[in-house]
Amino acid sequence: MKMFMSDNNSGVHPKIMEAIVNVNKGHEYAYGNDKTTKMAIEKICEIMGKDVDVYFVTTGTAANVIGLSGILRPYEGVVCADTAHINVDECGALERFSGAKILQIPNENGKIDIEGVKKYLHSLGDEHQTQAKIISISQTTEMGTLYSIEEIRNLAKFAHENNMYLHVDGARIANAVVALNTSFKEMITDTGVDILSFGGTKNGMMLGEAIVSFNEEISKSLKFHRKQGMQLISKMRFVSVQFIAYLTDDLWKENALNSNNMGQYLRNNLSQFSKIRIGDNLDTNIIFAHMGKDLIQALRKRFGFYVIDEEVGLVRLVTSFDTRKEDIDEFIDYIKNYLGS
Amino acid sequence: MKMFMSDNNSGVHPKIMEAIVNVNKGHEYAYGNDKTTKMAIEKICEIMGKDVDVYFVTTGTAANVIGLSGILRPYEGVVCADTAHINVDECGALERFSGAKILQIPNENGKIDIEGVKKYLHSLGDEHQTQAKIISISQTTEMGTLYSIEEIRNLAKFAHENNMYLHVDGARIANAVVALNTSFKEMITDTGVDILSFGGTKNGMMLGEAIVSFNEEISKSLKFHRKQGMQLISKMRFVSVQFIAYLTDDLWKENALNSNNMGQYLRNNLSQFSKIRIGDNLDTNIIFAHMGKDLIQALRKRFGFYVIDEEVGLVRLVTSFDTRKEDIDEFIDYIKNYLGS
Amino acid sequence: MKMFMSDNNSGVHPKIMEAIVNVNKGHEYAYGNDKTTKMAIEKICEIMGKDVDVYFVTTGTAANVIGLSGILRPYEGVVCADTAHINVDECGALERFSGAKILQIPNENGKIDIEGVKKYLHSLGDEHQTQAKIISISQTTEMGTLYSIEEIRNLAKFAHENNMYLHVDGARIANAVVALNTSFKEMITDTGVDILSFGGTKNGMMLGEAIVSFNEEISKSLKFHRKQGMQLISKMRFVSVQFIAYLTDDLWKENALNSNNMGQYLRNNLSQFSKIRIGDNLDTNIIFAHMGKDLIQALRKRFGFYVIDEEVGLVRLVTSFDTRKEDIDEFIDYIKNYLGS
Amino acid sequence: MKMFMSDNNSGVHPKIMEAIVNVNKGHEYAYGNDKTTKMAIEKICEIMGKDVDVYFVTTGTAANVIGLSGILRPYEGVVCADTAHINVDECGALERFSGAKILQIPNENGKIDIEGVKKYLHSLGDEHQTQAKIISISQTTEMGTLYSIEEIRNLAKFAHENNMYLHVDGARIANAVVALNTSFKEMITDTGVDILSFGGTKNGMMLGEAIVSFNEEISKSLKFHRKQGMQLISKMRFVSVQFIAYLTDDLWKENALNSNNMGQYLRNNLSQFSKIRIGDNLDTNIIFAHMGKDLIQALRKRFGFYVIDEEVGLVRLVTSFDTRKEDIDEFIDYIKNYLGS
Repeated sequence: MKMFMSDNNSGVHPKIMEAIVNVNKGHEYAYGNDKTTKMAIEKICEIMGKDVDVYFVTTGTAANVIGLSGILRPYEGVVCADTAHINVDECGALERFSGAKILQIPNENGKIDIEGVKKYLHSLGDEHQTQAKIISISQTTEMGTLYSIEEIRNLAKFAHENNMYLHVDGARIANAVVALNTSFKEMITDTGVDILSFGGTKNGMMLGEAIVSFNEEISKSLKFHRKQGMQLISKMRFVSVQFIAYLTDDLWKENALNSNNMGQYLRNNLSQFSKIRIGDNLDTNIIFAHMGKDLIQALRKRFGFYVIDEEVGLVRLVTSFDTRKEDIDEFIDYIKNYLGS
Repeated sequence: MKMFMSDNNSGVHPKIMEAIVNVNKGHEYAYGNDKTTKMAIEKICEIMGKDVDVYFVTTGTAANVIGLSGILRPYEGVVCADTAHINVDECGALERFSGAKILQIPNENGKIDIEGVKKYLHSLGDEHQTQAKIISISQTTEMGTLYSIEEIRNLAKFAHENNMYLHVDGARIANAVVALNTSFKEMITDTGVDILSFGGTKNGMMLGEAIVSFNEEISKSLKFHRKQGMQLISKMRFVSVQFIAYLTDDLWKENALNSNNMGQYLRNNLSQFSKIRIGDNLDTNIIFAHMGKDLIQALRKRFGFYVIDEEVGLVRLVTSFDTRKEDIDEFIDYIKNYLGS
Repeated sequence: MKMFMSDNNSGVHPKIMEAIVNVNKGHEYAYGNDKTTKMAIEKICEIMGKDVDVYFVTTGTAANVIGLSGILRPYEGVVCADTAHINVDECGALERFSGAKILQIPNENGKIDIEGVKKYLHSLGDEHQTQAKIISISQTTEMGTLYSIEEIRNLAKFAHENNMYLHVDGARIANAVVALNTSFKEMITDTGVDILSFGGTKNGMMLGEAIVSFNEEISKSLKFHRKQGMQLISKMRFVSVQFIAYLTDDLWKENALNSNNMGQYLRNNLSQFSKIRIGDNLDTNIIFAHMGKDLIQALRKRFGFYVIDEEVGLVRLVTSFDTRKEDIDEFIDYIKNYLGS
Repeated sequence: MKMFMSDNNSGVHPKIMEAIVNVNKGHEYAYGNDKTTKMAIEKICEIMGKDVDVYFVTTGTAANVIGLSGILRPYEGVVCADTAHINVDECGALERFSGAKILQIPNENGKIDIEGVKKYLHSLGDEHQTQAKIISISQTTEMGTLYSIEEIRNLAKFAHENNMYLHVDGARIANAVVALNTSFKEMITDTGVDILSFGGTKNGMMLGEAIVSFNEEISKSLKFHRKQGMQLISKMRFVSVQFIAYLTDDLWKENALNSNNMGQYLRNNLSQFSKIRIGDNLDTNIIFAHMGKDLIQALRKRFGFYVIDEEVGLVRLVTSFDTRKEDIDEFIDYIKNYLGS
């Protein structure tokens, strides 16, 4: 049975597991000084269309916190949506590790815009207040929405004009690239993003995230922050090889496409029920739906998913690289049965 | 070709890799709420002979820093040897993450004793000075030496009498248990250790470390420290299953035994060379040897190992779970050839 | 000329300066082990009607941050109004020093209520999210408003029922006590407040703030946090003696009363101008007023005050213990002249 | 009765108190934007012979920790003597506030030299180890000894050649300048010191310390670190005016001279007792002396001083700007009486 809690309920894509098994040969230099890691970095440079600096880590929180710490001094701040993963789902890891502060903006469908950022510029230079230094957006957002390429470009431009940087939390970046029918290069490199949390775990890896720095100044300190952040893996090849498999023969695209398509299929099927209200149609793998409390109770006995707000009957459903139509049909049939339609 | 740089140059033991491959079936609850992780915890409780609390992480530094943070307030300190991994090999991760201070003692062959700890007790209650709260020892030590069971028991007793805790950095704990021909229960649980960094990576895992807490008070906060420490792995089953394989059919013992035996074999063979001086005979897998600078240069071209001090010609050689006699013979032959004997 | 920027533009009340001069006799034990400091603590216990623990510091930020740190573990959070001084005017000092996170609530006239706090209770026990541990309110609030005694009592009760604590940022606590015609004991001790930042600087001291703990558990670590917080003054008697003078013959009350009365006088006089809009009538010494940008420009050339929002023409005016009617008359006359009335 | 515990048992020099009283006139801009503070900074620039940046704080620990934090990233370290105040007398404040690590060197009479620093250079670039970034010395040292001007110049040169900075903890800098019969300019500015903790409290101020930065790069962030370090005093003029009085008519020199002379007088008088062993003759105000435990017990009943090591009978005696010959005579007479000589 498949779950709809998150795209990390799934396991590892067979091709990625195969790569892990195959790299298990003999001795290798530890801590990333091995040839597999070098090759993985080249793969990432290739797909980004630039000689970027890459630091592999094992969790999305680590990618965000360590990447941001490469920039931040403790009196500086990160401007982001109130719904941002770094703000509400990382137990305050950024504050603890960097000493810096998150400057939140009320989100609009999971997104922020330049107008929202502006209010924090008034404090620049005033020592009584946190100095805004980074704009951080999630692409795909935590609400399943997307920034257009132009929006990202404008945010990057605005950031740079104000002596700030743009960070992208890309835990679900592949889903976004596929949904917008673009490339990593067009969406990230060419728009002027400074630093990216390049997620792999939610799209078929075992545990694989990469901090990708597009700015040499930022890169300088990242290896130290990673070690101090307890994320320097000794047998690194087993993490980095996952990215090689992932970026070979467009596996990342295939996985994300299935995930998004299943999301679409789930949305379409849910829309038949008058008692279920779903958000505007989006093209990613996250669906928020309002339904009756009793239906939620019933579904919970059989299927895994998050109940965002018990009171108002809001749930979150997420499809994965390995979700099949049958899994969704089973879910939909159960609802049909329950609602007696 | 095998390396002698560290026991993390090796790959993953085939049985552990097999377990990883086999656990890759269908969807599972994330973040450790899966049945594999529960089973792995039971296995650890069994081998420790106690209902301990277990938190899996992916690096030894994380096990040390997060475990210690479960106890420490920022004005408290950890008393340890100046050679301790937490003091010299973790880039100050403990200080940054916990805010606390390391109170170092000059080591004797990598070890500390009660007399050394005592000097920090004078400051208890004095707000001008860091408050000693934890004694931390490494077993096996960074010098390849061992604490006897009685020494550990005495340190634990002393710690508890002074309102302190005893932590063991067990990155190479299996080598120690095997070398002393004892059990985890006798060496750790029964001596009164409060918290253990239970290492697996250096003895055949891919990436697997566990924080094991023997004290419920400490355990309370550990899950929060782990998340804030960026170490809450989403697809946890792939980490925890490694411990199941490791603790099944004494695989841990088999691996450590080979590693220690190969260390012994290497020491014995090195002792034939009058131009190489090695430390007292020990039973673990770490050897420190003094040799000529020219020999070091020659060996370096062919074999991987750490040169501790270029000036005095001090090197460190480490054997691994998969080191074979042939690997050592090749190394020894090369030296023979070079020295023209 | 008097300013209206803040109540810390003023100097030191003569009686407090006299006390400072008089305590400058001979040698004394340093770091608070002197008899003057003991006496000051007794004075505070007396006025609080309880054997409280007291730690003197030199800034309001220090009182807030060190006091809160006596409670917080780094994965815990402080729930407060978005306008709270700890959230917007302390450059992220709490986050840096404690590692903890501020969980903000949209304010209503500078205040928060139980309903607002409740949303953070859902996360208790969930390691992905900061654990709400303290409710912090400012009394007087940053908007010049007040919590009633009943509101404080209810917040304390709610906090304790949920295993949380109540903190009061009392940078202007004397103004509040006077405005509500009550006592420190009734407003703080009897309502169940756990920890108070007891401000003196804004009401006539040179530099004098005290962390007052009503809970022995909290107190235990405070002396260490103060030293580590760089706030253990060596010649402490010169700080503590200010509290003796302040609490003798109701000097605190006299000062706060003048400050509040002058605030009232200023509000009343401003209300005559149709082109100036002021908030509801309050009884403290902070006034927010909307006026034309040109008037603001004109006033700025002569008088000191904060312009909160240039665009909408919002300014903040604060009266002080030494503001006289003449000072306000001068300000009002200037406006009259300018507006040509 | 005078104490010999520390030079902060004394009160405030009358001329400094007078300046404090006189600056208490009317309203002033807060947080250091007042004319008194500007004038105090000019005075410091004058005595340093350079346009330095100055940040006033209220404790020596704050001057050290905030100043060093202006340079340090959390993965960097400060090399200093094991006896350094920042290492043993500040409760780990530096580690907590900056996240950085102290890299200690065994002291020689309270001092370190270039050879000692060198061992930390091997780790530069290696992410497993803290990156040495600052050399910190205390002048006067905690042992009452002094670095010669040439030694300071060489340390600064060595630091700069290795991309490091030189910090001086000058809690007793005036005593050093006077003892070496030199000037602040010659000892600090001209030798290439990058950042100085300029102490005043131990030489006659009420509470007055200044962070003096000789390097614009460092200065940029210091105002933010000071605020975040809870040390931005609102009524700053009362702190800064102390430096004006201190630097007027050589008051600093007069005070330090008396303090040193009284130290000399005390040493000379103690040397008459065969049962008391004192260190080599030095010219500052700190004396370490070995004496019998019974004598220590007897003296303690009457006089205040620190017992460094009860077992071996080691005590520390410190004279102050206001110590008089009579105070020492009384102390010596008491010893004479006790020893029955």
